[in-house]
Amino acid sequence: MSINIKQKLSLFSDHWNPRIVGELNGQHVKLAKLKGEFVWHKHDNEDEMFLVIKGSFDMHYRDRIETIKEGEFTIVPRGIEHKPVADKEVSIMLFEPASTVNTGDSGGDLTRDKLEWI
Amino acid sequence: MSINIKQKLSLFSDHWNPRIVGELNGQHVKLAKLKGEFVWHKHDNEDEMFLVIKGSFDMHYRDRIETIKEGEFTIVPRGIEHKPVADKEVSIMLFEPASTVNTGDSGGDLTRDKLEWI
Repeated sequence: MSINIKQKLSLFSDHWNPRIVGELNGQHVKLAKLKGEFVWHKHDNEDEMFLVIKGSFDMHYRDRIETIKEGEFTIVPRGIEHKPVADKEVSIMLFEPASTVNTGDSGGDLTRDKLEWI
Repeated sequence: MSINIKQKLSLFSDHWNPRIVGELNGQHVKLAKLKGEFVWHKHDNEDEMFLVIKGSFDMHYRDRIETIKEGEFTIVPRGIEHKPVADKEVSIMLFEPASTVNTGDSGGDLTRDKLEWI
């Protein structure tokens, strides 16, 4: 079955609440919309890939800031503290192990640990 | 480091010869250009994700044909015979275990088992 990314993105509008759109080899493919500033966190056992579908955002690291634009991706290695910041809304695709929790080791109100399949 | 997909695609022009552009959690992120007809094959231990960056192609299964267009993806489960066919050139992103060989169990001249990082 082919999955249309923009059609799936049209099904939700809230921020920082990833949806699952695919699963393979123990990894999830997720879509999310980001706007504003997330929390500093890390994932001790999971590398994360962020692919920008629409817009752009900044990935803050403790020692630098990296901008990821439409049509670009970045991989955040496990154990590295990071904080996504989006001045304007950005739509992204995530590839990461099914075990990944969005806020990693930080927890808090933004944690989404029961993700919806769309 | 952010990776620009179109810039990476501009670095090669041959068909059926995936390049590696990222690695995470034992998975490779690859880019490839397809044109023409591939061989029937399956991967006994690897699910494969095909995401179309530019163009479209048909994934042939033994019982059906599925068209995957620009901005769409599909996941081929392990063990399922498939054959990509592209009437016109298509650029795709692949997401699959690092162990995946393009021709799976079929082998032959189209096999590329020493992939280049770009």
